[in-house]
This record gives sequence, C-alpha cells and structure tokens, in this order.
Amino acid sequence: MDSIEIQQFYARHMQLLDGGSARAWARTFTPDGTFAAPSMTEPVRGRADIAAGARAAVRDRAAARETHRHWVNMTLTREVADGVEAVSYVQILATSHGAAPQVRLSCVMRDRLVRRDGRLLVAERRISRDDRP
Amino acid sequence: MDSIEIQQFYARHMQLLDGGSARAWARTFTPDGTFAAPSMTEPVRGRADIAAGARAAVRDRAAARETHRHWVNMTLTREVADGVEAVSYVQILATSHGAAPQVRLSCVMRDRLVRRDGRLLVAERRISRDDRP
Amino acid sequence: MDSIEIQQFYARHMQLLDGGSARAWARTFTPDGTFAAPSMTEPVRGRADIAAGARAAVRDRAAARETHRHWVNMTLTREVADGVEAVSYVQILATSHGAAPQVRLSCVMRDRLVRRDGRLLVAERRISRDDRP
Repeated sequence: MDSIEIQQFYARHMQLLDGGSARAWARTFTPDGTFAAPSMTEPVRGRADIAAGARAAVRDRAAARETHRHWVNMTLTREVADGVEAVSYVQILATSHGAAPQVRLSCVMRDRLVRRDGRLLVAERRISRDDRP
Repeated sequence: MDSIEIQQFYARHMQLLDGGSARAWARTFTPDGTFAAPSMTEPVRGRADIAAGARAAVRDRAAARETHRHWVNMTLTREVADGVEAVSYVQILATSHGAAPQVRLSCVMRDRLVRRDGRLLVAERRISRDDRP
Repeated sequence: MDSIEIQQFYARHMQLLDGGSARAWARTFTPDGTFAAPSMTEPVRGRADIAAGARAAVRDRAAARETHRHWVNMTLTREVADGVEAVSYVQILATSHGAAPQVRLSCVMRDRLVRRDGRLLVAERRISRDDRP
C-alpha cells in the first residue's frame, strides 16, 4: 500500500461520492466499516447505513442545487497492525448554479485503510471539524 | 506514464499558465491539441489558438490586478488506446492586490494525455464547470 | 529524494505547524535554515528563531479562536547542487469556531530541501504572497 495507490483510492472514492454514486461509494468501505463524525451520537456501521447517509447527502445537495467537491490533501500515512492509518486534510467546495464556489467545510479525516481481496477499503473513518474544535 | 509524472506535468503546466507564459503553456498541448470549455461554441484547436486564448486571459488578469492559481487535485487516471485519460478537480484561486483570495471557479478537467518524443502533452481537454451543470 | 517522499515531508511538516508543535516543526529545518517572507525585513535564521515565530503564530491563532490548515500542492521540483528546489502553491484555510472556512492567503513557497542523516529538511524557504506582488 503505497502513497500513490492511496491517492488514487481517495480520488476514486471522492469522485464517486461527489458524482452521487452512494452505493458504489459505500463499497469502498469494508462490510463492517465505520464512519464517525462530530454530528453523530454514535458511528455509522456497515455499507447499508453508510450508503443511506450518502444518499441523504446527495438528495440534500440536489435540493439545494449545489455541486460538492471533496478535496483530500496533505495525507500522512503510517503502518498499523492491520493496514495503514492515513490522516488527511479535507475541504468541501460547494458551488450553486450561477454562483461562486464556497469552501463549506475544513476537516481532518483519520482513516484506517485495509486491503481485502487486493483492493483498498476504509475500515474505520473518524472526522474532526475545524469549526467544532 | 505514472501518477507522479502526471502530477509533475500538471504542476509545471499550471505554473506556466499562472506565471503568464502563454506560449510555453500552449506547447504542453500536442500541435493539434483541443481545448473545450462550456463558454465556447466549439473547441479551440492547435497551439496558436490555445496560446492566443491564454494570452487574453493573462491580459485580463493583469488588467484586473489579479493573480490566479490553478490547483489540480484528486486526479483519477485510466489507460486508453493512445495514452491516459486523467479526470481531475480544479479550483482557481484569484487574489487581488491587498485583498483576501477568492475561490473563483470549481471545475472538472478531463484530459487525454499522450507521450510524444518522451514528453507528456495534452491531446484533448474538456472542462465542465460546477456553476453550469 | 523523490516526489512521494517530498509530499510526505510536507504533509508531516504542515500537520506539525497547524497542530501547534512549533518546536518539532522548527526541527524540520536545518540548524541554520532560513525563512524569508514579504513581511520580514530580513530572513529568520536558525531553529530557535523559526520556532519562536511559529509559537507566536500559534498564540495568535488561539487568541483569535481559529484553526489554520496549510495546504501545499502543485509542487514542482528540480535538482540543485545541494538537494532539491521545490516550488509549491500554498493556501491557508482559516476556520473560526462555528463559522465557515476562509481562504486566508494564497502564496508560492520556494524551498531548498536537503538530506541530513537520512531525513529531509528545509535549508532555505522564500515565500511570495499573491496579495503583495
């Protein structure tokens, strides 16, 4: 699992999410993968619930007539027992029809990435938001 | 053509454009390269016309006393018959003298990159803008 | 010194700075490293003074209740006598508690990176700001 492979993983991962492919995006998590963000009382677990959350976000964006782009950068990796821990900066650029883009959110994404049947997958994700320190 | 080489290509490519080197920038396209954006009724073709478009943009920025920075990230690549298709997110940061930067534009850049005499070149570029879906 | 190693260097370097680890950040410069920015009448030299500058910035951010994220991208490298010259775009994303992020600054970072005892270090840094051309 090298840095280039991880970059390509995140590029595909976020292009799926931003393109509205909630189900394909959820399949870049392990079957029992978890997703924890400050807005949640407890982490979401499993592809079905992760996909449901993404579908809701896709609907909200469509209702708001916005396009979102998740930018991932400054990824720092270290090997852990079952894969790689990757800590990245993320910014979400939101653009409304006919308007200038806004940086909607700056956050830090802490992932544990594992390899299953040759493919990289997110086993565990923890998001911290810069506006809620 | 690996990911690192493509990243270095885009770094040089955009630093040339943002630095105002319209002619050198146009030479990072193939001689019959094309550039298509939503604002155009048909694609621009060939280095002379691509350079002319860049020179006009450089003049406009200078008149507005702005510096532009094209950020390319989240590049997803796949091999195609004659090279590589690279789909990237692009944001343009515009800074006026004495002012805070603005994110002027968020777009998706779809390039077909080819190798000619050992160098990477853009054979075909298609831009879609997030503010004009 | 390859591109991946340089990207990992900058990821760790900026995560240290943004995380408030001024002393550890200063140790990613050579002992006699220099840092020059338009706001300075002469470059800062040496780890003690570089750390002092970072500590002041960390205090200012805390007083303003802001989180800063330094994004580095579009890094173009070339070999020089004593290492590598790396020219990058940098944007600083600043987020106040409860508020949307702002792009605080767009600048160009020109580093001379050297290897000492196996580790990459900044020997010389020159910053130019897009708002002060």
